[in-house]
Amino acid sequence: MDSSSEQSRGDRFRLVVSYDGAGFHGFARQRGLRTVQGVLEDVLERMLHTPVEVHGSGRTDAGVHARAQVVHFDVPYGPSADRWVFVLRNRLPSDVIPVRADPVGDDFHARFSVQRKWYRYTIYRSKVPTIFRYRYSWHVPDALSLEAMKRAANDLLGTHDFTSFCAATTPVEDKTRTLYRLDVMDRGDTITIDVVGNGFLQYMVRILVGTLVEVGLGERDATSMPSILAAKDRRLAGSTAPAHGLCLWNVQYPDHYGGFVLDPHVDL
Amino acid sequence: MDSSSEQSRGDRFRLVVSYDGAGFHGFARQRGLRTVQGVLEDVLERMLHTPVEVHGSGRTDAGVHARAQVVHFDVPYGPSADRWVFVLRNRLPSDVIPVRADPVGDDFHARFSVQRKWYRYTIYRSKVPTIFRYRYSWHVPDALSLEAMKRAANDLLGTHDFTSFCAATTPVEDKTRTLYRLDVMDRGDTITIDVVGNGFLQYMVRILVGTLVEVGLGERDATSMPSILAAKDRRLAGSTAPAHGLCLWNVQYPDHYGGFVLDPHVDL
Repeated sequence: MDSSSEQSRGDRFRLVVSYDGAGFHGFARQRGLRTVQGVLEDVLERMLHTPVEVHGSGRTDAGVHARAQVVHFDVPYGPSADRWVFVLRNRLPSDVIPVRADPVGDDFHARFSVQRKWYRYTIYRSKVPTIFRYRYSWHVPDALSLEAMKRAANDLLGTHDFTSFCAATTPVEDKTRTLYRLDVMDRGDTITIDVVGNGFLQYMVRILVGTLVEVGLGERDATSMPSILAAKDRRLAGSTAPAHGLCLWNVQYPDHYGGFVLDPHVDL
Repeated sequence: MDSSSEQSRGDRFRLVVSYDGAGFHGFARQRGLRTVQGVLEDVLERMLHTPVEVHGSGRTDAGVHARAQVVHFDVPYGPSADRWVFVLRNRLPSDVIPVRADPVGDDFHARFSVQRKWYRYTIYRSKVPTIFRYRYSWHVPDALSLEAMKRAANDLLGTHDFTSFCAATTPVEDKTRTLYRLDVMDRGDTITIDVVGNGFLQYMVRILVGTLVEVGLGERDATSMPSILAAKDRRLAGSTAPAHGLCLWNVQYPDHYGGFVLDPHVDL
């Protein structure tokens, strides 16, 4: 039970965490700023008296929420699998909530093992925003044509070069990604846009949403998506939707790791 | 349109505001602290270039939310009634939301004209708290008997001396208040406790809720409320439920002021 050099005999855990993005400068550790990775690593280090590196399924931007961010970490010793959630809940701040923890083999990697990621973007429509939703949704009180948005979304499905739909400064070379779902759903006071893909470029979901909203507002033609994709020019797509409407909703790993980390049929 | 001495010819407005209590040291202005009254008065003064006193329907404790706090204020000039909400929405921070504004006569007073106040306390039950609810509800994962809570609540209805159910330091002399409703409602993942009364003492709703939860947990007898009331001793009631589960839900004024300021049949 001492914290010396037994790390090689340690265990790897996969942890699912929710967080309220409003209080964080994004997921990835940055010196001097409050980030989710930083908070997790600090809590684990204080618990185990040894530095613990936390690997996430991917970064989320400042302000973006997560219902199911996935991380893995290796520990030299620590609670049994069924105790991790309880132990962490008592040590993490209230805006980071541990949801489940599972022991995994050394071949599991929170980022490299990902098959699909599922984001949900929430738009709040009513004229008056409610105090219970303003933190987690984008308030768009103007009339939106959902039919037009669905029509445009349909042309974005599948495998494309998404250069037009990511930050112009994105350093990744291959900008080809596959969208399996891009569902615009009417839920009364809110519209949700569920985006499932094999990977996402910087700001990609927020630019997809911003463009679809411009289509819904009638500012942009619902049939213009193929030409925007073809142009590979960020300037042709719409503006970037605000971070606070976006939530990392679920992450899927191969079947032998259990598929989606949260039951995909449970809405909330 | 100059900001000189025309205040005597001014208009009185009633404003309904929602706020997220997490970012405030309560409603009432306190020097050097962020409060709802302080934010409203500062915004109005910057708008109108003259100090404006804001009168609330009552104070809310630090951390307590409001769906419908009511204030009134007198202004020497300003937007027409139908423009106030729009103008304030663009000037207030995102955690204070103006909901509606109405011109009222000089005989209206946000506090002294109140007939009834309606608070809602929300308890979240599921084992894992969700990130979308933790700010607005008290997480109680242990089993609660709603039948016992309803039984106890029933004995608290009506007119009583609520000395046992307010802060021991409450300076008010007459601690007699009337509860018209104290409804414990099962909503699946959440329990809501709606409390409607003609007035509330300091911490009264939170102590009522804390006591009912102890009844629900089986730590306290469901039939013990009459003896607690009769003892007029704060030490006999339960603990004070956390502020962040509480929300000022609606305020009722006499019929000629329109009754409840928000439609009481609209849940949210």
